[in-house]
Amino acid sequence: MKAIAEARTPLTVFEQMESEVRSYCRSFPVVFTKASGHMLWDRSGKAYIDFFAGAGALNYGHNNPAIKKKLIEYLQQDGLTHSLDMATEAKEVLLQTFRETILKPRSLSYKVMFPGPTGTNSVEAALKLARKATGRETVMSFTNGFHGMTIGSLAVTGNRMKRGGAGMPLTHTIAIPYDQYMGSELDTTLYIERLLEDDGSGVSLPAAMILETVQGEGGINVASIEWLQKMEAICRKHGILLIIDDVQAGCGRTGSFFSFEEAGIVPDIVCLSKSIGGYGLPFALTLFKPELDIWLPGEHNGTFRGNNLAFVAATESLRYWKNDQLSRSVLAKGNIVRTRLEKLKKAYPFLQGKVRGKGLMQGLAVGAEGMAEKICAKAFERGLILETSGPKSEVMKVMPPLTITEEALTEGLDILEASIQACKEEEKEQ
Amino acid sequence: MKAIAEARTPLTVFEQMESEVRSYCRSFPVVFTKASGHMLWDRSGKAYIDFFAGAGALNYGHNNPAIKKKLIEYLQQDGLTHSLDMATEAKEVLLQTFRETILKPRSLSYKVMFPGPTGTNSVEAALKLARKATGRETVMSFTNGFHGMTIGSLAVTGNRMKRGGAGMPLTHTIAIPYDQYMGSELDTTLYIERLLEDDGSGVSLPAAMILETVQGEGGINVASIEWLQKMEAICRKHGILLIIDDVQAGCGRTGSFFSFEEAGIVPDIVCLSKSIGGYGLPFALTLFKPELDIWLPGEHNGTFRGNNLAFVAATESLRYWKNDQLSRSVLAKGNIVRTRLEKLKKAYPFLQGKVRGKGLMQGLAVGAEGMAEKICAKAFERGLILETSGPKSEVMKVMPPLTITEEALTEGLDILEASIQACKEEEKEQ
Amino acid sequence: MKAIAEARTPLTVFEQMESEVRSYCRSFPVVFTKASGHMLWDRSGKAYIDFFAGAGALNYGHNNPAIKKKLIEYLQQDGLTHSLDMATEAKEVLLQTFRETILKPRSLSYKVMFPGPTGTNSVEAALKLARKATGRETVMSFTNGFHGMTIGSLAVTGNRMKRGGAGMPLTHTIAIPYDQYMGSELDTTLYIERLLEDDGSGVSLPAAMILETVQGEGGINVASIEWLQKMEAICRKHGILLIIDDVQAGCGRTGSFFSFEEAGIVPDIVCLSKSIGGYGLPFALTLFKPELDIWLPGEHNGTFRGNNLAFVAATESLRYWKNDQLSRSVLAKGNIVRTRLEKLKKAYPFLQGKVRGKGLMQGLAVGAEGMAEKICAKAFERGLILETSGPKSEVMKVMPPLTITEEALTEGLDILEASIQACKEEEKEQ
Amino acid sequence: MKAIAEARTPLTVFEQMESEVRSYCRSFPVVFTKASGHMLWDRSGKAYIDFFAGAGALNYGHNNPAIKKKLIEYLQQDGLTHSLDMATEAKEVLLQTFRETILKPRSLSYKVMFPGPTGTNSVEAALKLARKATGRETVMSFTNGFHGMTIGSLAVTGNRMKRGGAGMPLTHTIAIPYDQYMGSELDTTLYIERLLEDDGSGVSLPAAMILETVQGEGGINVASIEWLQKMEAICRKHGILLIIDDVQAGCGRTGSFFSFEEAGIVPDIVCLSKSIGGYGLPFALTLFKPELDIWLPGEHNGTFRGNNLAFVAATESLRYWKNDQLSRSVLAKGNIVRTRLEKLKKAYPFLQGKVRGKGLMQGLAVGAEGMAEKICAKAFERGLILETSGPKSEVMKVMPPLTITEEALTEGLDILEASIQACKEEEKEQ
Repeated sequence: MKAIAEARTPLTVFEQMESEVRSYCRSFPVVFTKASGHMLWDRSGKAYIDFFAGAGALNYGHNNPAIKKKLIEYLQQDGLTHSLDMATEAKEVLLQTFRETILKPRSLSYKVMFPGPTGTNSVEAALKLARKATGRETVMSFTNGFHGMTIGSLAVTGNRMKRGGAGMPLTHTIAIPYDQYMGSELDTTLYIERLLEDDGSGVSLPAAMILETVQGEGGINVASIEWLQKMEAICRKHGILLIIDDVQAGCGRTGSFFSFEEAGIVPDIVCLSKSIGGYGLPFALTLFKPELDIWLPGEHNGTFRGNNLAFVAATESLRYWKNDQLSRSVLAKGNIVRTRLEKLKKAYPFLQGKVRGKGLMQGLAVGAEGMAEKICAKAFERGLILETSGPKSEVMKVMPPLTITEEALTEGLDILEASIQACKEEEKEQ
Repeated sequence: MKAIAEARTPLTVFEQMESEVRSYCRSFPVVFTKASGHMLWDRSGKAYIDFFAGAGALNYGHNNPAIKKKLIEYLQQDGLTHSLDMATEAKEVLLQTFRETILKPRSLSYKVMFPGPTGTNSVEAALKLARKATGRETVMSFTNGFHGMTIGSLAVTGNRMKRGGAGMPLTHTIAIPYDQYMGSELDTTLYIERLLEDDGSGVSLPAAMILETVQGEGGINVASIEWLQKMEAICRKHGILLIIDDVQAGCGRTGSFFSFEEAGIVPDIVCLSKSIGGYGLPFALTLFKPELDIWLPGEHNGTFRGNNLAFVAATESLRYWKNDQLSRSVLAKGNIVRTRLEKLKKAYPFLQGKVRGKGLMQGLAVGAEGMAEKICAKAFERGLILETSGPKSEVMKVMPPLTITEEALTEGLDILEASIQACKEEEKEQ
Repeated sequence: MKAIAEARTPLTVFEQMESEVRSYCRSFPVVFTKASGHMLWDRSGKAYIDFFAGAGALNYGHNNPAIKKKLIEYLQQDGLTHSLDMATEAKEVLLQTFRETILKPRSLSYKVMFPGPTGTNSVEAALKLARKATGRETVMSFTNGFHGMTIGSLAVTGNRMKRGGAGMPLTHTIAIPYDQYMGSELDTTLYIERLLEDDGSGVSLPAAMILETVQGEGGINVASIEWLQKMEAICRKHGILLIIDDVQAGCGRTGSFFSFEEAGIVPDIVCLSKSIGGYGLPFALTLFKPELDIWLPGEHNGTFRGNNLAFVAATESLRYWKNDQLSRSVLAKGNIVRTRLEKLKKAYPFLQGKVRGKGLMQGLAVGAEGMAEKICAKAFERGLILETSGPKSEVMKVMPPLTITEEALTEGLDILEASIQACKEEEKEQ
Repeated sequence: MKAIAEARTPLTVFEQMESEVRSYCRSFPVVFTKASGHMLWDRSGKAYIDFFAGAGALNYGHNNPAIKKKLIEYLQQDGLTHSLDMATEAKEVLLQTFRETILKPRSLSYKVMFPGPTGTNSVEAALKLARKATGRETVMSFTNGFHGMTIGSLAVTGNRMKRGGAGMPLTHTIAIPYDQYMGSELDTTLYIERLLEDDGSGVSLPAAMILETVQGEGGINVASIEWLQKMEAICRKHGILLIIDDVQAGCGRTGSFFSFEEAGIVPDIVCLSKSIGGYGLPFALTLFKPELDIWLPGEHNGTFRGNNLAFVAATESLRYWKNDQLSRSVLAKGNIVRTRLEKLKKAYPFLQGKVRGKGLMQGLAVGAEGMAEKICAKAFERGLILETSGPKSEVMKVMPPLTITEEALTEGLDILEASIQACKEEEKEQ
């Protein structure tokens, strides 16, 4: 089957010219040509349901028609495409819309920074600002956290293979245990509090803690509401800044616009990227409390901070947040996914499955080694794009566009089940 | 005059909502609404000649019509916009075109990496790879070099203010003197060679040296051909990788596609961004010799590596390199600029000017403190966008789109002269 | 009382000339003039029982007569005093004696390194060797561990105040929880094992773990036999070197020559100092398994590696280890101390006391803040030298010379009790 | 010859038991048994003239009789041997004597710190204090500087082999060029000043510069008076602390007590060790201006700060500084050495020799590779102990005790000449 696929859509040019670092094109070895909403098509015309959503960058679907219309209009009227951090109308409208639609209704007064158009740019800006503002160099990060590939962000990322890519020591960071890291044996907040209170712990008072409320790349680990509240309290008590990296879990992925809303906490700094660009266009924001805005002009810069096409797309995408329709629909579809995954877990005990997640960020952790990847490969053959995550690629991530129809969602889950069934049968044969 | 400009185009929203880190909007305090080729317009309809070219990201001008056409077509046909590192047709065509148009004619066999869509992503990938490939953690960088704002890149950037933004020590890098750093007193290659050869120098054998052939942000410092050749020889002798950061000087800015072609050197790793995206869209590449391609799949990743609109734009922009017409035109227009700057330097001795640069990357360094910024402000009032660079913002950079007409170029230079004249008169009055 | 003491023995010269960093002379504000065995005398002739033993450097008592005799003989015959790492007879005899008396009977085949004459020199050499031998830069150290004041050792020391003295970040080390760090809530070996096994923990595979079997400065925390065995097993499993810092707990302090003998573990590297010099003379050794001896000649050096007076004293002191008499006496006297401390804890509940320790390294942790220091001050007035340790100076350390008589021991404990009683009465009065 | 030597004094125990790191015992492969003044004797009774002086720790000769007498007396009367930083009479007398004999006559008001008894302890304390006092983490050190083997000191040491022993990156230091590093081509103070003044140099404002006025281990490189004065001026101008490491060049080695006296500069911090102990006993001091004394009590500590035997010896040795007799004699004997070395250089052109040094710290740099070590080996056979230094062990160091007689000095120089002659003849034969 794989052989046929490759025959149909040879990846010759990529194999010859592109670095060995390429990765997703190995799991999904076809040449894609077209995409719309929750669907993709390859060169042969084969269709795929998308349970991947550009790793969370396509919450509003591929080539969302309302946004596309705005982009084409903007291009046609020669609006500025590239503006660094000069003032443009597209940026002005975006700022106003973000304030009216997102910040004001949530009583948030964040200043907005355009740190460069990628998630790792946003995280780097957050870390720099936290260190500069506190005068402390250490940042606490969490086991299995993922924050990006540039050195500052990589130093707060848990994955050992990716850290190895640095080729040098990653310093000024301390890894501390995420919620449930030792299962029910240890309330990790007690351990963290002990490290901070004990003058002999060997752990410096950090500038900040950076965390994801749901760890996407780390394996769909969900922090409980109480744990988040305790971490915020610890930060307040010790004068530590709380940075929420909402690059993947934000923009509605867990139901609310910010993933931390349900916990009622107010981070000092918030990192946004991925779906904030609306259309999959490179874009990122760093939000922070006004009193932290101690940057000197130009102290952090970057050529592509002024990606005006992304401003236009982002502005249009914020229409989804004028009411709670999308939120409710995410929770409803999240329940469909959750119910089905729980059912699969029970029906297929060979998986040694565990279900976890929130909203449309759900995962089925598979105990049997290598099995998650096998199932994903089978699903791809059947027309479903499904990614794994976790330190051993052991978690199947169900993360479709938020705008997916319930029919397509069910169809995708059916393919998932068929793929599990196929793997089960193969196991038996051996 | 400034008061009037502000009245006309208030920046209220930006002042209220955007971080203090914003910078260019302070030098050019209007809201821009439209751009085309070498021209920009603000909200009041006032036109500006662009001697800035998006800090080098707009070599083919604003909203280049041929590229725009391709972008709109691609959007209309629902080609994939966002694809991470999956294979798409747009990417395939780009790779083929880059090979045929750029690599093959120059007998280069680089592997191509998509490191994320910004210059600093490209630099970070280069540094990580160099360290990993050599097993050494130190990188040598040059006085007044500029490579980006994320921690890995910032550690090889010279600017003290920007380094201060890190809020923590920047380590594993050694600053060494660029060509002419001590004027004619010292051949800096001799000093660098001494540090490497002396077993007591306290300087580790580095993984790599990273350099710009012309330092843009550092103040338009041009390395001589001989110096570049000596540096390459030193690298070869000691087994040090040579990284050329061609983010600003590449893509034709100095005349040839790569800025290092004239020197006849072959870097081990090349960083490209800014104008490689063709239309000012976020895009970057890291090129390296095939034997360095030791990346593990996914060891460096990033959400926006698959910005297909940029692939489409980049492909179309490479048409400019099918023949040497653009190259010759850059050199011709470079001469016009050079001649005029030399004339200005002589005509206005109060400037204590020095002219330097290459191709359409020319600068007039102004000895009188604060004067360069004053002249640029005057030029802006007169409809010319002109940036300063250098550690004390002492160099006026003349860096228009490569596609600017000779008429517009001359008009811009006339405005520059008028602005100098105006400053001179003000000086007298005092 | 304090005023009187100062009147009697003014510290004027010290106050005028010595740095503010001086510390013990503040707790014991007299000028000492004479010492012998477990006794000290100040200038006024007042005698003090020594429960401090030079912070563990005087296990064989002050000015031990047998050793003194050898020192004077050596001086009189003009044996080499200072020899760097040249071969001398004094060193030869020491090496032979150490092999016959210490290593052989314990079936240990360690190579012996003379790293410089202080504990921190020994630790620095151990850390350098571990990193060099494994090619890894990280070392795991433990909460409340203490290993020295030079940067390498300070980086594995837990105390926040002392770390602050570095004036710069201390890197390439990870603090992990010592035995019982979270009380009975967590078996810390499980947490450490999880960090090592989880590919997403953010924790690098370390070169080594460095630990004290009983943490002296950290507050007399005793690691259990099982915990030590588990830690050794974790090290073996992951290829991590195990370094035991036996600077304070070694040389018989806990009963056996090495503190780790009872656990039946064999560290890869052992650090010795303090009492290894026999007479309180500066001396240190680093022992390691022969296969780790990858040093290049002169790769670690130091002027005072050849302190021959210390060699002579050390050789003589090893006589104490020709049979098990000293060991048995330490355990017996340890029991006397233990029993008394337990009794004090019960009799004086206002102390909120906890007793811990091993052999003649016992402590009474006092819950009431500042009380431990108060009691020690009272004890000093009454002629007993008693030190506190722990992150908040909350533990009274009972650490007399191993050669103390049972009578003097009891007398000292009586003074301790009287001092507690005096504090209790003062508390009541308030 | 070497075979005979080994037969006579086998080093078996050392070879079996001592780490491969041992070094001097390889150059001088005999077992030494006795020493007095400028003479050593090995087990066979063979005598050696000492041109090495314990690497500068024996300025007053081996087993100086006046000091020996005081030591034996002190031992006999049971004065405290080991006192940590408690006040003792021996320490009080030392402080008073140091003030009266050294500080006052030179109008210096330094506070005195006992940082632990080795040179590297003194340097570590100096670096920690400088960083803490300025709040900056970077220290500038010099090409071919040598400051010690613990991580803080090693990071400011130039030697590549020794740095490699760290097994990890050495950070927060910047190597800058010593006087004459580029020969006459470059005044290195101009380069250093440029790095500091240029806001784009990539070099941080350092806490301190640490330097030796004569680099001993680095190859007897002498900084000129003007250069030292310029460096002090640069430090003052930029608010950088000036640390003079006088561990080897101090205590009269270059003629005056402090090596920097002739230059008329006043360092902020001075490191002393080696001969400050008088008798080769482990001892070190760190001196600093009173306003820098911001240490917290106990913020830097160490078990062997109170080595009272060294206090007694040091006090007695300071008698040599009550008048200028020793100073004048050092200069006179230095001239004898200098004259002879210059003569040898001319008489033996095959050496490609260069003479350098100051006082009784003189060196003959030998251009012919490996030749310096060959000559030293020949000299040893002839009864002269002579060490090499420099990054390639290319410099023969003439560094006898300051108290050597002129006869012995001449005899030693004769042996040196005979050894050179022997090597010359061997060269010819080949």
